[in-house]
Amino acid sequence: MVKLIALYKHPENKEAFDEHYFNVHGPITSKIPGLKKMKVTKITGTPMGKEADYYLLCEMYYDNHEALKNGLKSQEGKASGKDLMGFAAELVTLMIGEEVE
Amino acid sequence: MVKLIALYKHPENKEAFDEHYFNVHGPITSKIPGLKKMKVTKITGTPMGKEADYYLLCEMYYDNHEALKNGLKSQEGKASGKDLMGFAAELVTLMIGEEVE
Repeated sequence: MVKLIALYKHPENKEAFDEHYFNVHGPITSKIPGLKKMKVTKITGTPMGKEADYYLLCEMYYDNHEALKNGLKSQEGKASGKDLMGFAAELVTLMIGEEVE
Repeated sequence: MVKLIALYKHPENKEAFDEHYFNVHGPITSKIPGLKKMKVTKITGTPMGKEADYYLLCEMYYDNHEALKNGLKSQEGKASGKDLMGFAAELVTLMIGEEVE
């Protein structure tokens, strides 16, 4: 499978971030056509017991690259992108990946 | 579930990295006690068609934080850590995460 990975740095206001992320951004994103599965991971720290570079990881699965591309180009995909830029433009790193194992 | 996330920046020599990663590091790591699942993702780029900041993502699943901690402290965990530092100390970012959705 192919996945879009969104990796968020620590927000200044974690409560406001969580509130928007889970109540607004997640629901908007979950409507993107072709999206098969959405997995959110809260980063709790590093193996050395320190604060990690990142705060949250979201993995959004699609059947293939074409499906992902079409999802992002859809109305719902654009709405999700617009919302993302509104609350986390400075925090997010987006990557596309292929699971190999 | 809890997972250890290893995020690798682009290596200078991708062929040598892959060769070591898949033939040596993966097999050593897969022996760590308590490791339930290991998922490797090759990063292919960004949604904007650019090269991503990272090259590879590996997610290693454990039942809980205690199991992860014990895994890393085991002989096999130490061997994996030592190997990692030998070929990718400058490339890797390690984080622990909890799946929430």
